[in-house]
Amino acid sequence: MKSFRKELWFNLPARMEFVNITSDVDECVRESGVQEGMALVNAMHITASVFINDDEPGLKRDYKKWLEELAPFDASPERYHHNRTGEDNADAHHKRQIMGREVVVAITEGKLDFGPWEQIFYGEFDGRRRKRVLVKIIGD
Amino acid sequence: MKSFRKELWFNLPARMEFVNITSDVDECVRESGVQEGMALVNAMHITASVFINDDEPGLKRDYKKWLEELAPFDASPERYHHNRTGEDNADAHHKRQIMGREVVVAITEGKLDFGPWEQIFYGEFDGRRRKRVLVKIIGD
Amino acid sequence: MKSFRKELWFNLPARMEFVNITSDVDECVRESGVQEGMALVNAMHITASVFINDDEPGLKRDYKKWLEELAPFDASPERYHHNRTGEDNADAHHKRQIMGREVVVAITEGKLDFGPWEQIFYGEFDGRRRKRVLVKIIGD
Repeated sequence: MKSFRKELWFNLPARMEFVNITSDVDECVRESGVQEGMALVNAMHITASVFINDDEPGLKRDYKKWLEELAPFDASPERYHHNRTGEDNADAHHKRQIMGREVVVAITEGKLDFGPWEQIFYGEFDGRRRKRVLVKIIGD
Repeated sequence: MKSFRKELWFNLPARMEFVNITSDVDECVRESGVQEGMALVNAMHITASVFINDDEPGLKRDYKKWLEELAPFDASPERYHHNRTGEDNADAHHKRQIMGREVVVAITEGKLDFGPWEQIFYGEFDGRRRKRVLVKIIGD
Repeated sequence: MKSFRKELWFNLPARMEFVNITSDVDECVRESGVQEGMALVNAMHITASVFINDDEPGLKRDYKKWLEELAPFDASPERYHHNRTGEDNADAHHKRQIMGREVVVAITEGKLDFGPWEQIFYGEFDGRRRKRVLVKIIGD
């Protein structure tokens, strides 16, 4: 069994942003030499997500609005007890649960085995700092 | 390491529906010949889910009502920017994030390693078209 | 390819609670002898979750409040059809979908390959009964 590991680094200027990382993961699959296996792609931070959806600007805007409704940013310690620690990012810990930590993608004949519109995104909910995504690949 | 791949096809008459696909995945595990490993089952479309829960009709009805509250269908371009593309399915992209894209299930002694009530569902949120689920199995 | 399987058992006194199980999963990785691979950690019950986030008491309190808002406990059969079966735990089936069934974690050089704050939690939404988490590890 082969295995491969790589970190992707981000430092996004906005608090909330979505970045298409499909080509980075594609490149990892090529480097790994794995023909049949699985790729795990996960946020290594607990205020960020990795998810698969459509690369359409209107949808990204919709997700931001929707996540802000489901878990509003509020730095005060009244709404979120987590912010009594001095943090202001409790909302980001909630948004990340909606969008998920990780995706697992099949590798078939040396490629990500995707449907027609699947694209992998890094979802940042507490940006303006250096954060990482882990790509781990196993297979033959 | 063995690997196995199969697509399951759906064309559901309703916009939103849940279909128990456990026996289809069971059959894939048998065909794969894998005794110890993992099965990845994922929607190949971005307005559909694969998830594990209880096969109880009342619960399916509850999920539909709840998802409609969290992300209502609205074909107009006012609520969802995504629908300015000419699509009417922005709500489905949101519902899918709540229910998830994929499940990973352990295979032990040649069988899906499940708790007493676990059943795998295909969740459709924008039906009335042909769509696919991918089953990818790796192991020995 | 090596494989390893272990069940972790819980019987929590509260209806909703979060338990840090990172050290239990660490121990499984050691026992497995796997140096490079993946660990699947999943709830075997459909009213419970396994998720990764921060071990901070205020955040646990925030999650409980938030999940109760998104899917309130209501034993009556009016809000949830599922409760017409005689169950009172329909809310737990919903909360579990928000927090997720499973995590897949990379194993690198014999250890869980984690970012600085990642901790694995068992999330119970219908406690006061014996329930299980499955840890399945594959790799070399």
